[in-house]
Amino acid sequence: MERESRLTEEEKLFFMQEAINEAKKAEKIAEVPIGAIVVCQGVIIGRGHNLREHSQDATSHAEMFAIREACQQLNNWRLEDCQLFVTLEPCPMCSGGMLLSRVAEVYFGAYDPKGGTAGTLMNLLTDERFNHRAYVEGGILETECGALLTDFFRELRAKKKKASQNE
Amino acid sequence: MERESRLTEEEKLFFMQEAINEAKKAEKIAEVPIGAIVVCQGVIIGRGHNLREHSQDATSHAEMFAIREACQQLNNWRLEDCQLFVTLEPCPMCSGGMLLSRVAEVYFGAYDPKGGTAGTLMNLLTDERFNHRAYVEGGILETECGALLTDFFRELRAKKKKASQNE
Repeated sequence: MERESRLTEEEKLFFMQEAINEAKKAEKIAEVPIGAIVVCQGVIIGRGHNLREHSQDATSHAEMFAIREACQQLNNWRLEDCQLFVTLEPCPMCSGGMLLSRVAEVYFGAYDPKGGTAGTLMNLLTDERFNHRAYVEGGILETECGALLTDFFRELRAKKKKASQNE
Repeated sequence: MERESRLTEEEKLFFMQEAINEAKKAEKIAEVPIGAIVVCQGVIIGRGHNLREHSQDATSHAEMFAIREACQQLNNWRLEDCQLFVTLEPCPMCSGGMLLSRVAEVYFGAYDPKGGTAGTLMNLLTDERFNHRAYVEGGILETECGALLTDFFRELRAKKKKASQNE
């Protein structure tokens, strides 16, 4: 496991803002706003945002698109020198995808008390029993990343309330 | 969580054989032989086999292809009435994909002592903290499923040894 981040604080904020920009693409099309990017030697080589409703595919998480695009870009399933940024703490599937692709460092924004497996419910990314471990750092632009989600769900509840009143 | 399987023993063997047939497709193209299928009301609606080397994509696991195809077939990210069969105990990514797609029942063949998260290292599929739990049963056609893998790796080692002797 990496013990120290390879990035400066400025770089972390810059790349998390790029993940937030991805999340906003989801928000624009009424998907839960979560975004992710993969960075290799300072260059963004994978991007993704949640598309579950549009794709009607349960695996359409931001991180999976970003990992797949990064693998394509490098023509290599190993992302050993890469960093992954995601606005919400990853779920088991995405944490697992990070382990399989051997991403070196994972940075996330908001913590996920219900399903986060990069420190909250458990930490799959640092579990010594798997054949890869990643450096993990949460809470990067946490307020902005969390607000995207709370605002989205607040508006959704308001719309649903309005719709039920109009029935 | 489902407490009892909805399938007969005969059905379990039949569908695991179908997953083995998928694994053999991987074997034929020199990929680690792991196969998976998704079943809905007795009909196979998703199939997949490991394609990591051909795709150079770390997320190219059998189960992920089977889940994605099943979601496409149903045009629904929820596979709530479905069974998933896979020849090897799932990893964290695939276990997570099963949770997200809300697969009702998961049947696997061989146990994976190094990375299995459906009972061996942990059981993500029955963890009460996630918002879905599945019925899980391992060891279906375990010998056949395991032999596919041990034979594959034995041949790979033999080929490598021969290649190094010829250098």
